[in-house]
Amino acid sequence: MTTNRQVLIEEMPKDRLTLSHFRVIEAPMPDPGAGEVLCKTRYLSLDPANRAWMQGATYRSALENGQVMSGFTLAEVVSSQDPAFKAGDLVECDGGWQQYFTKPGRALTRRDPRTPLSHLVSVLGVTGRTAHYGMASLGQPKAGETVVVSAAAGATGSIAGQIAKLAGARVVGIAGGAAKCARLVDEFGFDAAIDYKAENLFTALKRECPAGIDLYFDNVGGTTLEAVLFRMNLRGRIICCGVVSQYDTGQPAPGPRGVPGLIVTKRLTMRGFILGDEPELVSLADRELTTWLDQGQLIVAEDILDGLETAPGGLIGLLAGENFGKRMVRVS
Amino acid sequence: MTTNRQVLIEEMPKDRLTLSHFRVIEAPMPDPGAGEVLCKTRYLSLDPANRAWMQGATYRSALENGQVMSGFTLAEVVSSQDPAFKAGDLVECDGGWQQYFTKPGRALTRRDPRTPLSHLVSVLGVTGRTAHYGMASLGQPKAGETVVVSAAAGATGSIAGQIAKLAGARVVGIAGGAAKCARLVDEFGFDAAIDYKAENLFTALKRECPAGIDLYFDNVGGTTLEAVLFRMNLRGRIICCGVVSQYDTGQPAPGPRGVPGLIVTKRLTMRGFILGDEPELVSLADRELTTWLDQGQLIVAEDILDGLETAPGGLIGLLAGENFGKRMVRVS
Repeated sequence: MTTNRQVLIEEMPKDRLTLSHFRVIEAPMPDPGAGEVLCKTRYLSLDPANRAWMQGATYRSALENGQVMSGFTLAEVVSSQDPAFKAGDLVECDGGWQQYFTKPGRALTRRDPRTPLSHLVSVLGVTGRTAHYGMASLGQPKAGETVVVSAAAGATGSIAGQIAKLAGARVVGIAGGAAKCARLVDEFGFDAAIDYKAENLFTALKRECPAGIDLYFDNVGGTTLEAVLFRMNLRGRIICCGVVSQYDTGQPAPGPRGVPGLIVTKRLTMRGFILGDEPELVSLADRELTTWLDQGQLIVAEDILDGLETAPGGLIGLLAGENFGKRMVRVS
Repeated sequence: MTTNRQVLIEEMPKDRLTLSHFRVIEAPMPDPGAGEVLCKTRYLSLDPANRAWMQGATYRSALENGQVMSGFTLAEVVSSQDPAFKAGDLVECDGGWQQYFTKPGRALTRRDPRTPLSHLVSVLGVTGRTAHYGMASLGQPKAGETVVVSAAAGATGSIAGQIAKLAGARVVGIAGGAAKCARLVDEFGFDAAIDYKAENLFTALKRECPAGIDLYFDNVGGTTLEAVLFRMNLRGRIICCGVVSQYDTGQPAPGPRGVPGLIVTKRLTMRGFILGDEPELVSLADRELTTWLDQGQLIVAEDILDGLETAPGGLIGLLAGENFGKRMVRVS
């Protein structure tokens, strides 16, 4: 009988995340109890939020030393003691960084198969849905508006920017490196891209957003948010999706200068959100994303690593921004 | 013929504001031209925003060395070359720190006399209207909610807190000093008050807001905002009215840590505003404030200094928090 490979949290990071914070082990195969479902991980989603979960309790409880690392998974049912599921079913849940796991049926959400299967983790997964929920439902970009997206080459940002383009907005992406910026414009249809590593963000935003910024989709926080705040138009909207600049540290930096001074004088609205508070908006996201995808109106970038043991290094690299689009691990 | 006493900006402050940044002079009486109105200042409003105007252009152009200090005034028409105004009319405008000024009629807003006249500068003036606009129209406190107001003993905060009480909320004020805190509870009907100078704000907020904070009316920004952010409830609202902790400095401090991290995880909304964007809401403020005042449902705190020459020291003291309620100067 086969064993179950798992990645444990060896020790919670106090500052930057390194490989030494993880340990790969071979555990016995889990044994499903009454009402439980045995699942085989197909894809493991790597997300910047994985690191944020290590900073303490947020919208979920904090992680702890010695536990299997948490992570969102697309999995296949191997055997089931819950009549609602049968072998071969495709499900999603927080299965963690392991090859096999058991869950009560109520913890699983069924997904319809799709080709490629990875789209259920990227554009039709948490990040794509988050992009739609934040950009389309909350941000509501309008034709002629200027929209800026940070971490624009990431899984969420690359979809969020395209959604704003579909609404007729001028879309400017912020990303690290010339290659990412070139792809954003040439392949993904952004109107402009700013390489924050290569030039002064204040100057670049002035050049690329001559009419100011009406809507900012913030994935990074920190000094990027600060620079954008100065260029926001009166009554501009800021959708706070994530703060990736502050995740991989034990001591988050102070917030940007001028918050909330600029919020007052520019009459800005900043709104934070987490996917899932409004289930009907998640359904709307699925419907619209699927339609756009089927009509060829969305380009999906995926960055797929192979094998569970690539997960620790994959997450560390993700936090360093080495991916373009959705990073995930093909486990089986 | 009498002369016109004026307070000029001698030199723009680079850091803390001091008396040496102002100069009092005797100028010739202004001579109204065609269409202009000669006005005599009755009351000069002192506001923390006066100091913010010195930091650069915001919602108004920046002040400059050598000019008469700007300030909101309640004035009486002495003579008029605009048929819309006649001697004895009561008007309000940015008349500046001087005894007499001329303005084109279009720059003046007529006010109906009221006893005491000072109420037109406090509860029925910019600060009272701001409190209503921000708290009632934007914040929309509800019965049973917990509302926190910072700078609660100030002109805006003392009214904003009472408006939330009228809506049935539990209201906690943050102010500096035991005397202010006692008055907030004993005279102004706040449910609790926290002396931020005497105790740890995180601890005190936890004690006084056992059910968390649903609505925060922020007058101060900085570390106070930071402490409140940690205690906000899911989907809480923050109304950003001012940032008085950051006005009297040449180098505003970085924003609070955890902005916008906490905005994301708690799905908060932060909304900045400036009185006047929506004239119908200012009219609503006037109507409701007048009604509450006439019904004895609002207590008004005024801190009136006498003589134009008290204005510089009065503003410096205001920034240091030595006032309770609306600070103004009775000029004539």
